[in-house]
Amino acid sequence: MALNPQYEEIGKGFVQQYYAMFDDPIQRPNLVNLYNNDQSFMTFEGLQLQGAIKIMEKLQSLTFQKINRVITAVDSQPMFDGGVLINVLGRLQCDEDPPHAFSQVFSLKPLGNSFFCQHDIFRLNIHDSA
Amino acid sequence: MALNPQYEEIGKGFVQQYYAMFDDPIQRPNLVNLYNNDQSFMTFEGLQLQGAIKIMEKLQSLTFQKINRVITAVDSQPMFDGGVLINVLGRLQCDEDPPHAFSQVFSLKPLGNSFFCQHDIFRLNIHDSA
Repeated sequence: MALNPQYEEIGKGFVQQYYAMFDDPIQRPNLVNLYNNDQSFMTFEGLQLQGAIKIMEKLQSLTFQKINRVITAVDSQPMFDGGVLINVLGRLQCDEDPPHAFSQVFSLKPLGNSFFCQHDIFRLNIHDSA
Repeated sequence: MALNPQYEEIGKGFVQQYYAMFDDPIQRPNLVNLYNNDQSFMTFEGLQLQGAIKIMEKLQSLTFQKINRVITAVDSQPMFDGGVLINVLGRLQCDEDPPHAFSQVFSLKPLGNSFFCQHDIFRLNIHDSA
């Protein structure tokens, strides 16, 4: 399959859609539609999960109600299976917690006229001072 | 191609090898052997590069001599083409500059008995205070 020349728009569009759903407790359950039943991997703060059901169990267990999120970089690359690799950096604040830097990597896999999220790696990178 | 069950060791081994070469100005030119002539993409601080030659031009243009690097997280996932997706977080200090947090994503593609680096996304994530 050829490289998708729209990778930049696809990456930015996915990130916008993903966090609009993630950051709203009402919409969060709809994230299930972005993952595949078997062929989706998530690593959440080092915890490895496979498949939409396990991933959603983890995401639904998050108890915060309010997220303030600032995206500082979205870098996308076309993949040789027609997919898109995306690296997101930013800051987020949950409820009244202090703000933290975060990193999230997605890889999107083509499926019909759309994509699902095949790989997802999330880390809050809380740095000790150097 | 099947998922590679050794993805964790492969990821950690690659990261160790990559930074041992990168962080030593004498060994840095050998990084060329980890990229493919055409099928390697790098995004370096938002700058998009394709192919080992362009990537090495960029890496060789970096003028610092000494790097202090601390790796804080390496998360790896097996990919469905037999490759490995790796997210690295850490801190680095070049020469006498202040230390910065960095993020680097690699995807490794199988080639014969080894792998080459097909995707590489690097960012120094210098946060404004929230």
